[in-house]
Amino acid sequence: MSLLVVGSVAFDSVDTPFGNVKDALGGSAVYISVAASYFTAPVRLVAVVGGDFPRYHMQFLEDRKVDLDGLQVVREGKTFRWGGRYHYDLNTRDSLYTDLNVFEQFNPIIPNGFKRSSYVCLGNIDPVLQRQVLDRLSKPRLVVGDTMNYWIENRPKELAETLKVMDVLVVNDSEARLLAHEPNLMKAAKRIIAMGPKIVIVKKGEHGALLVTEETIFSAPAYPLENIHDPTGAGDAFAGGFVGWLARTDDLSPDNLKRAVIYGSTLASFCVEKFSVDGLRDLTYLQIQDRYRSFMQISRFDER
Amino acid sequence: MSLLVVGSVAFDSVDTPFGNVKDALGGSAVYISVAASYFTAPVRLVAVVGGDFPRYHMQFLEDRKVDLDGLQVVREGKTFRWGGRYHYDLNTRDSLYTDLNVFEQFNPIIPNGFKRSSYVCLGNIDPVLQRQVLDRLSKPRLVVGDTMNYWIENRPKELAETLKVMDVLVVNDSEARLLAHEPNLMKAAKRIIAMGPKIVIVKKGEHGALLVTEETIFSAPAYPLENIHDPTGAGDAFAGGFVGWLARTDDLSPDNLKRAVIYGSTLASFCVEKFSVDGLRDLTYLQIQDRYRSFMQISRFDER
Repeated sequence: MSLLVVGSVAFDSVDTPFGNVKDALGGSAVYISVAASYFTAPVRLVAVVGGDFPRYHMQFLEDRKVDLDGLQVVREGKTFRWGGRYHYDLNTRDSLYTDLNVFEQFNPIIPNGFKRSSYVCLGNIDPVLQRQVLDRLSKPRLVVGDTMNYWIENRPKELAETLKVMDVLVVNDSEARLLAHEPNLMKAAKRIIAMGPKIVIVKKGEHGALLVTEETIFSAPAYPLENIHDPTGAGDAFAGGFVGWLARTDDLSPDNLKRAVIYGSTLASFCVEKFSVDGLRDLTYLQIQDRYRSFMQISRFDER
Repeated sequence: MSLLVVGSVAFDSVDTPFGNVKDALGGSAVYISVAASYFTAPVRLVAVVGGDFPRYHMQFLEDRKVDLDGLQVVREGKTFRWGGRYHYDLNTRDSLYTDLNVFEQFNPIIPNGFKRSSYVCLGNIDPVLQRQVLDRLSKPRLVVGDTMNYWIENRPKELAETLKVMDVLVVNDSEARLLAHEPNLMKAAKRIIAMGPKIVIVKKGEHGALLVTEETIFSAPAYPLENIHDPTGAGDAFAGGFVGWLARTDDLSPDNLKRAVIYGSTLASFCVEKFSVDGLRDLTYLQIQDRYRSFMQISRFDER
């Protein structure tokens, strides 16, 4: 099924204890689209870049069958730039700079050919823009959305309105606690469900993810990687793998939601093994299946 | 099979956002013994208390079939006292006071009837004492041990010696990183295996636990509890459930080690639902089995 992805495209400069990259390809829409592209087509991208965005990045996305009809290029502007430094255990990071550039005035124009997309994934952008996107679409089957501390704290009313029209909210554990004003993750997830989304996914970084619906609780392990080089984009790769699998199978049963969480975790695990999107550049479907089975092996136990 | 438990018995005063208790029954040996008592008998306790330790606490332990022949009572002394306060999300705590009292001079005398114990669980005490205990026993089948930041930082050489004679080390994630000088948990676990223990279990609090051996990696989920009242003793309840299950089944196969991790997690989940050892006072085996099956339900997913 078709998947529409809206979010940022950026140049990321990242410093970790294992190395660094400067002005590498990044942004939520990129990670989501590339991860999803392993499962479904077409993946339709809506985002904005400046005149400095090189052709070879577009070529890479096109090679991954990402439809760039919705990628606005502001010739006289500059692409969004972010710089960050990760700490020793890679669980925390400092933002060094955030230059929004053309992203500051981003108006998510949806090409006519994109309006009937079955699946939608809204990267972490202003909740007002997220709702605008949904207003411009004709009844998608599933809307998955991300948000972050900044919007929770600075746009609470706007975010509350957007949550009412989201089917799945994907947040990390601290965001879930902040949004629900509740330290207990299970209670927080249930409160968020009361705000609108039928499904809440709490990403817990190196500790896996939790899927909560009215009827289902699913605790997914993280893959115990020995070589993590750059956690940037892991959450977006997760969202892309998750929604990509659902778009591929068009099955929203509890069992398939669980599989989608594991496929999301699988793509996130590949993502963090290399810098920027390099971990997602040329995977094979066999590699993805192998890691899915590894997730199974490390978490299976029997009755007794 | 018989299980020997060595550790502390204490009066804990605990303050959490959900209430508080003063001078409640605590200590590693108590949590380990009580948790293990649901699986195996006899559980043999070696610890020290002061003349202020009330008869009804001993009665409770005896009712749980814990053999108190190794409980030294120093009439003129006072029992170990600890006070702590947990923060908002229950993941961090401040120690308010630690009055070692009779525990400061603890000499773990092993009654003759305890020397041929098949399974041994060494609570978090000075690694020199842990090794003394092992020297006084005749070839146990399995030695499970705990340690903490304090010993890792202040008794590194003594701990290194003790690790050589431990079969299973149970530590939390920050302790594993500190002990191995390695931020990556998988690498840290492997380095610890190189130090002696054949099995390393990394407890991750609300995020579950990781079991690592030369051949096996197992990621156990945490039970998504909505009501956590007091995390004190959760790690010891985990160790008690883990070693108790192994002593019950006397089966050290990879599959049974995984089950043991889930039984440990099960006992830890009951432990944190109430203050002090109250969550472990009167469980039924049926309740334990039910929660084991819940762990299964929340973590199962199928192939596709």
